[in-house]
Amino acid sequence: MQKPRRASKTGKKTKPAARRVTRTRTVNLQASVKMRAAQVDRELGRTLGRLRDFPAHGGVSPPTRLLAAMAHSLLAGGKRLRPVICIESCVAAGGHAPAAFRSACALEMVHTYSLIHDDLPAMDDDDLRRGQPTCHKAFDEATAILAGDGLLTDAFLVLAQAPRNPLRQVTELAAAAGSFGMVGGQMDDILAEGQDPAQVELEAIHRRKTGRLFVASSVLGGLCAGAGDREIAALRTYGAALGFAFQVWDDVLDVVDTTGKGGKGVGRDEKHDKATYVRRHGLDGARFLAHQAADRAVHALKPFGKRGAVLAALARYAVERDH
Amino acid sequence: MQKPRRASKTGKKTKPAARRVTRTRTVNLQASVKMRAAQVDRELGRTLGRLRDFPAHGGVSPPTRLLAAMAHSLLAGGKRLRPVICIESCVAAGGHAPAAFRSACALEMVHTYSLIHDDLPAMDDDDLRRGQPTCHKAFDEATAILAGDGLLTDAFLVLAQAPRNPLRQVTELAAAAGSFGMVGGQMDDILAEGQDPAQVELEAIHRRKTGRLFVASSVLGGLCAGAGDREIAALRTYGAALGFAFQVWDDVLDVVDTTGKGGKGVGRDEKHDKATYVRRHGLDGARFLAHQAADRAVHALKPFGKRGAVLAALARYAVERDH
Repeated sequence: MQKPRRASKTGKKTKPAARRVTRTRTVNLQASVKMRAAQVDRELGRTLGRLRDFPAHGGVSPPTRLLAAMAHSLLAGGKRLRPVICIESCVAAGGHAPAAFRSACALEMVHTYSLIHDDLPAMDDDDLRRGQPTCHKAFDEATAILAGDGLLTDAFLVLAQAPRNPLRQVTELAAAAGSFGMVGGQMDDILAEGQDPAQVELEAIHRRKTGRLFVASSVLGGLCAGAGDREIAALRTYGAALGFAFQVWDDVLDVVDTTGKGGKGVGRDEKHDKATYVRRHGLDGARFLAHQAADRAVHALKPFGKRGAVLAALARYAVERDH
Repeated sequence: MQKPRRASKTGKKTKPAARRVTRTRTVNLQASVKMRAAQVDRELGRTLGRLRDFPAHGGVSPPTRLLAAMAHSLLAGGKRLRPVICIESCVAAGGHAPAAFRSACALEMVHTYSLIHDDLPAMDDDDLRRGQPTCHKAFDEATAILAGDGLLTDAFLVLAQAPRNPLRQVTELAAAAGSFGMVGGQMDDILAEGQDPAQVELEAIHRRKTGRLFVASSVLGGLCAGAGDREIAALRTYGAALGFAFQVWDDVLDVVDTTGKGGKGVGRDEKHDKATYVRRHGLDGARFLAHQAADRAVHALKPFGKRGAVLAALARYAVERDH
């Protein structure tokens, strides 16, 4: 284990990485994220409405039930992590937040579609999501399948109207979300369930299932700001490390969370016999990995100076949160 | 009913439109379509392989099972109608066929995803498609959901690499396939099943469910050729009329087909109590509507002269085929 560089005030020697990342102005982060999430919620509502005005649609609306199902899942709240990362990455790269709103909405639409399909009876068969009935419970299975399909497809329509670099953004998101990315990761995840958890390639599954959408979130933000190749590369590193930190810390919380705030219920992965970082590396090992990843994420933000402060705080939050 | 403009050689007065469209060089069309479909089959195989080389994927393949399920449905053959329309529209607008290959593949990927999801137990619950077990029968439900998601998402990755007008193509396809287009039409279709067939807005359902992807097919072809606004508008009219002709003629064949070549089995819509054009307008009325639409499609091709010959033959074929 890496040696702490400075003497510790608390004297604990077991979590060097943890100590280094505790210098977080939590209040600022909470306020920033809350403000951004509120912006995202407002923009998502507008985006659904704006689709109707798209010329090619000829003023015709989709069936009310389909739109209601899409809205049910899309507007159910949630942390809005991906859109917040996107907007803050745009700001870090010197852009204005509103330049990233469309891309942020597209990311949340893709994320929401993946949750709707993931919750289906044939997949994870979940009844609750974000504290509400899942889409197929609130409506029905066919409607949920179509609501997911609609959100995914419409996301590309929204993204194609991004004010800067729309084509690169479409390419980035499609690559991240498709069969080589998120969808492939969901398949991995299903295939891994029957396997010996020790044999499962956790890293590859995670990188695909959630990691690539995190990377796309920060890269899209950079593209919205017209960032250069070096800044995009830095955001790519940040997104990958942040996604990893969140994932490993989720595994940690699945074991130690006693707040009842966690979405899935403690020990759920354990019951499902899923491979997790805690099973693989032990609780302390997983904690260390998560903190190490958060450090990598913060380090990647150096080129952005103070403009990267919220992103840095987010990386620290990823491995400090208790739910 | 409209009066035939010229004296008829056969003397039959009931199907004026039918007579006007019988001057088809069927052999040429068959050869052309067969050649194009073979090109499409080859390109689809290459496209699946080429995804692997996409830089952002870092040389990592998706899970074999997912790729196998996608290939199972995508490479199962079929008429390849949408890609053929796309390629021929490119040729009609003065482009070279290969310029439209990527867009043609993207269209077939989107069409195939819609079939996979449409066949799911929660939707139409079909066991056979294109003479083979449906995706969820050959694999399982979860894999089929993901294979559809993968094809849809990857289609946008493929389309974003189109050599000309990629962004306009992404916008066109996303608008045509999303909640205001094809997905909305599938929802319409489900909602209509319980209703009084006489009250169902057949036109709106059809326009969304299949019509808009036909329109996108011809428009994408035009965009691949760098066509101007007037040519794009002509292709839009052609695609809409062609799609309508195919749909109405399908309803006709559902009642009169005795060849056993039809995919769905004769009278299937009748059994499902679905609203069809034959139910609404009678057999002769539906035939007339279909021929009228084929005429509209052929008429729209005027600006393209001889280069539009295959598209014109296709429109005539739409309302002459017996399966």
